[in-house]
Amino acid sequence: MSWTDYTASLIRYPELGFSLDLSRMGIPESYYESMAPAIERAFADMKALESGAIANPDENRMVGHYWLRAPELAPNEEIRAAITEPLAELKEFAGRVHSGNVTPPSAGAGKFERVLLIGIGGSALGPQLVADALGRGAPMVIHFFDNTDPDGMDRVLGEIGEENFARTLVLVISKSGGTPETRNGMMEAKAAWERAGLEFGPHAVAITGGGSKLDAFATEQGFIARFPMEDWVGGRTSVMSTVGLVPAALLGVDIDGFLAGAAAMDRETRGPEAKGNAAMALALAWHHAGNGRGEKDMVILPYKDSLALFAKYLQQLVMESLGKRHDLDGNEVFQGIAVYGNKGSTDQHAYVQQLRDGVPNFFATFIEVRQGRDGASPEVEPGATSVDFLQGFLRGTRSALTESGRPSLTISIPRVDAFRLGLLIALFERAVSFYASLVRINAYHQPGVEAGKKAAAAFLKLLSEVRSSLDAAPRSAEAVAAALGADPEDIYHCLTHLAANGQAVCTDGATPKDDVFAKP
Amino acid sequence: MSWTDYTASLIRYPELGFSLDLSRMGIPESYYESMAPAIERAFADMKALESGAIANPDENRMVGHYWLRAPELAPNEEIRAAITEPLAELKEFAGRVHSGNVTPPSAGAGKFERVLLIGIGGSALGPQLVADALGRGAPMVIHFFDNTDPDGMDRVLGEIGEENFARTLVLVISKSGGTPETRNGMMEAKAAWERAGLEFGPHAVAITGGGSKLDAFATEQGFIARFPMEDWVGGRTSVMSTVGLVPAALLGVDIDGFLAGAAAMDRETRGPEAKGNAAMALALAWHHAGNGRGEKDMVILPYKDSLALFAKYLQQLVMESLGKRHDLDGNEVFQGIAVYGNKGSTDQHAYVQQLRDGVPNFFATFIEVRQGRDGASPEVEPGATSVDFLQGFLRGTRSALTESGRPSLTISIPRVDAFRLGLLIALFERAVSFYASLVRINAYHQPGVEAGKKAAAAFLKLLSEVRSSLDAAPRSAEAVAAALGADPEDIYHCLTHLAANGQAVCTDGATPKDDVFAKP
Repeated sequence: MSWTDYTASLIRYPELGFSLDLSRMGIPESYYESMAPAIERAFADMKALESGAIANPDENRMVGHYWLRAPELAPNEEIRAAITEPLAELKEFAGRVHSGNVTPPSAGAGKFERVLLIGIGGSALGPQLVADALGRGAPMVIHFFDNTDPDGMDRVLGEIGEENFARTLVLVISKSGGTPETRNGMMEAKAAWERAGLEFGPHAVAITGGGSKLDAFATEQGFIARFPMEDWVGGRTSVMSTVGLVPAALLGVDIDGFLAGAAAMDRETRGPEAKGNAAMALALAWHHAGNGRGEKDMVILPYKDSLALFAKYLQQLVMESLGKRHDLDGNEVFQGIAVYGNKGSTDQHAYVQQLRDGVPNFFATFIEVRQGRDGASPEVEPGATSVDFLQGFLRGTRSALTESGRPSLTISIPRVDAFRLGLLIALFERAVSFYASLVRINAYHQPGVEAGKKAAAAFLKLLSEVRSSLDAAPRSAEAVAAALGADPEDIYHCLTHLAANGQAVCTDGATPKDDVFAKP
Repeated sequence: MSWTDYTASLIRYPELGFSLDLSRMGIPESYYESMAPAIERAFADMKALESGAIANPDENRMVGHYWLRAPELAPNEEIRAAITEPLAELKEFAGRVHSGNVTPPSAGAGKFERVLLIGIGGSALGPQLVADALGRGAPMVIHFFDNTDPDGMDRVLGEIGEENFARTLVLVISKSGGTPETRNGMMEAKAAWERAGLEFGPHAVAITGGGSKLDAFATEQGFIARFPMEDWVGGRTSVMSTVGLVPAALLGVDIDGFLAGAAAMDRETRGPEAKGNAAMALALAWHHAGNGRGEKDMVILPYKDSLALFAKYLQQLVMESLGKRHDLDGNEVFQGIAVYGNKGSTDQHAYVQQLRDGVPNFFATFIEVRQGRDGASPEVEPGATSVDFLQGFLRGTRSALTESGRPSLTISIPRVDAFRLGLLIALFERAVSFYASLVRINAYHQPGVEAGKKAAAAFLKLLSEVRSSLDAAPRSAEAVAAALGADPEDIYHCLTHLAANGQAVCTDGATPKDDVFAKP
């Protein structure tokens, strides 16, 4: 019986080496039928999107990441050129870096050997995934500033080593140039380069929107090169734009294969036939599992070390796209699907205990990589290799979850290469687009992050006022708050921050109300 | 108002530099009262546990991880010695490795410069956390085999470089020696060392239970040293045993400070007074947030790069401990709390959109590290540094979540050092123990992982039969299944695995039923 279900429901694309097994998700056949109108709408939405409609109405933008691997589908010649021209340029640029035609400015420094990528969100996570999955044997070593943690930056600079700054190419990635974490990272790197007696600009490359703050800064500072970011590419889907491809090319990744894998998956899943469409099947499986309201978390378990960052990549793609308060009609819906996971079989020793026995609030997504390794394997016990064990653990865990009524689906690919990473990303991108249509939300904006940014800016303004207002006489948070007309808790957090960083002296009282702060 | 709540509810231990802010969790004052009998029981359970009761009845074991940092509390002299003696020995051993008194066997190899740690679950994740959080400037470079992925092992061996094997100390960590992933990793490393013309044993150290398979193997192979693992230490709480301390000492981590931090938190939270007890407060906050049934996921957001693995560490500690089917009376309860997270502010660009606007199925745990960095910071804009921005983003995100009704709690420490990492781990360990008592489950076993292991073993056995049964005539999965009296789907997975790894030839049909397989 399960064999019949398996074989009947398996979606496979033999030319891609891809299959999707939904037989353990418990989806009744009638489900597709009951969802037929929504499915039809989702295909229509995607057709409009891919034809250049304003699919992100709040920001009045087209949504163009699907064109990046099929520029012939772009809605006009201008957009087509905005894909193909930078692609040719970045390939040429990477070639020139590798061959030593683009060289460090310092005399005798030789070739650029390292990359320091400064970005956050989509501008770091996509390149990190690509570097981790495909970067083995790369001609350059890559490092990342992906946060505004100064201690973290010191650590990365230490890993590079000051003696290597002269041979390190810095990629600064920010569409607007206004993302503070990235701007801060750039300013910190600039200061570090200058402390080392080096000019920053001739080591740097910008990937940014034309006319952005970063674009202007790059011109002013004499950056080596600039690559454009287009407003119809969102950060979380930018890995196949200049954002992902410039670092990938520098690492020697087969970017043509990467794009071809995505294009191939796009062709298989564009529709409008639901049957056999892996992206629609995935979206419907998510919808069925969580009742269209995200009631089940998505646990991602790739059984392959080189895909260890894929769950984190999907966490961003899925949660930022689907975690929305309003539907397209303005109703409050509080949508989203929580995503987490690392890798198998490692995670079996971390939380499969809970998956099997505990709170049934998830469905599992196994990712099987069929080939164990290049070359032969030693036997680790008579008749069995590590290759066999990895497969055994995947199959064993899948069986154990089914046995305890926990749904799972399994995606299979033959190996982790540029083509297959491209097709996996394309599969999930389209599934996210479809799912958003099924539940009628805008998957392409992120209105919810503004509130935190505004609150952070308010905190920084207040911090500056508090810093100026400190004097030699110790005062409590309430006293400072009264003087500044601000909330005492906010003031207290400013004061403790200043005290912890050498800009105030704190004398502890019994409670925060009794702590007093003075100028050091 | 919020200031009054904040200051009244803040738990702080000034001597530890620690505070816990639960003011944004929305816990009514009456909650402690209503939970009083359960709280009392939890303290009594912990007292019994720390006194040496069989706190893990299913496995008939004591639960002794709290003694590791307070051997004076161990229930008898034998256990006390089992803590203090290996501790002294491992310190001495690390000193001898660093000073070159314990040396590689090859003539002229010099000192051991690298560590390859082979372990999985608690035997890898604790050491990984410690290395990542505290390992900067370490005297040795550490690498990990934490899975049975052969391709992943090849990658790690490539990073070490065959020319460095002779100066690499291999730590093999497995209580029973029977964990297949670890055993496989060891056999793969042994094969790699031998391919490089090196004897494996004189490069290796075992951390294992006395009389285990690994213990016997270590003797037979002439390992350099063996350190004991005790049966009253569970894997997920083993970081303060030899499992965590041997690698920590090799990395030059201040292990006395690490243990002292944990001991200090233990003293503050041992009870039996609930008021001001951070571990009990945390357990009650989890209980309140999820209605004692894990209805809310725990999102962990440390605003500090060096704590990026802490969420993963807690994922294991919490989910493996609390994800249980039965309570202590044998009722089906399907307990657990799902845990995920990486680091702030990076994750603000990944999924704070969903946290703020989307499905309200979580509570956030902010971890604030008050000191930004050692030394001065450049201004990244007038009057502000990266240090200020990191704090601003934490405060801004906390405010934005509160504003949209999403609960959060905030833990603060002055910096990430051995003492503070120790106290953070101790805090969560005790909170997990308390929570388990509140919901009446055994936090110390993992019965749910057996099913997957058994299914994996069955798969491997079947795989071996299928491999032997292949011949030149192509057959379908159904035909092979009929011959072996097995399930066709299981057989199909065996066959595709063999085909993907050069041990069978597959000719694709229209569906899996039509695929045929032969001996190559």
